[in-house]
Amino acid sequence: MIGYPNKKSLPIRHEVKDNYMGRGMSLEDDLNKSNEYYLETERALIHKKPIPVQIVRVDYPQRSSAKIVEAYYKTPSTTDYNGIYRGKAIDFEAKETKSKSSFPLKNIHPHQVKHLQRVLDHGGIGFVIIRFCTFDETYLIDAEYIIKHYFQKESKSIPYTDIKTNGHLIKQGYTPRLHYLDVVDQCYFKEEACE
Amino acid sequence: MIGYPNKKSLPIRHEVKDNYMGRGMSLEDDLNKSNEYYLETERALIHKKPIPVQIVRVDYPQRSSAKIVEAYYKTPSTTDYNGIYRGKAIDFEAKETKSKSSFPLKNIHPHQVKHLQRVLDHGGIGFVIIRFCTFDETYLIDAEYIIKHYFQKESKSIPYTDIKTNGHLIKQGYTPRLHYLDVVDQCYFKEEACE
Repeated sequence: MIGYPNKKSLPIRHEVKDNYMGRGMSLEDDLNKSNEYYLETERALIHKKPIPVQIVRVDYPQRSSAKIVEAYYKTPSTTDYNGIYRGKAIDFEAKETKSKSSFPLKNIHPHQVKHLQRVLDHGGIGFVIIRFCTFDETYLIDAEYIIKHYFQKESKSIPYTDIKTNGHLIKQGYTPRLHYLDVVDQCYFKEEACE
Repeated sequence: MIGYPNKKSLPIRHEVKDNYMGRGMSLEDDLNKSNEYYLETERALIHKKPIPVQIVRVDYPQRSSAKIVEAYYKTPSTTDYNGIYRGKAIDFEAKETKSKSSFPLKNIHPHQVKHLQRVLDHGGIGFVIIRFCTFDETYLIDAEYIIKHYFQKESKSIPYTDIKTNGHLIKQGYTPRLHYLDVVDQCYFKEEACE
């Protein structure tokens, strides 16, 4: 189970909006809207997976409704997004950071990196989308690049400049908010690989 | 949100084991074990998606732990299982019925049927796995067959005999418990389609 650190040790109750902890117009939000747009325009079939939760107790306050009264976050065993694009299985994780200098690798769970390796092994397209909030820049980085850095013991983060060089800047707009499939086209559906 | 009908109208508290409401060695359980086996033997990368839950309130009883104290089940917008097999995107729903005569189509949400149609449109492999508990028989039925029946207004269920004829019996064993990828091989990786 994931522990969410909190400054006070007494119980604190938080209201959760849309399963997302108040970060405004978040990367998750942008991706969900973009995926909706891609779905409606029949360009791709990509969904965010639900947050994995271990349900322990359920109440039935009314005949027709169930209320979960005890549940815990579980560590995700896969990435958050997957689906189908141009006949290929597509799978990715999305993370944002407030850092100006680098992307901290601890933001990604080891399980997720292992999962991305498996995606590649089984013939899927795998990548990570990273947003540097301060610069409002969002990059697509091929899974292989992330995997390589993740398992180098000495590297705890990937410098911003390296992501700028090795990743692919995603154009932002209104519909879709993130034109990330254009980058996928360019990286995975051309003769040259995404390097 | 999904309503789970209950006989009494006063609040009743249920303990939930493994997110599954006490049906013993369930189809879900068998599929999860089979998918684990397929994952370990590197044959396929298929996962069950987490149950979609709308999280409303979270407590932090300790500095390092989060406890969800109010959440509700959401209607799933996709099927439960997806992944990659032999380079292809694979997507399916699994249902069991105690009926001896037919599979009730109300067991599948309209969203899920629409999703399966999209899986086919985007070039994926889509199907439904149906278990007739009484006979301990589990069938793989191609998505097209299910979609066709689902949207026929007059049909509220698919007769067992039709599933026996048009579906494909999945061999059961120990590892994996359900040899369903053998049926996938036979149906989707041969020159003839799965009819």
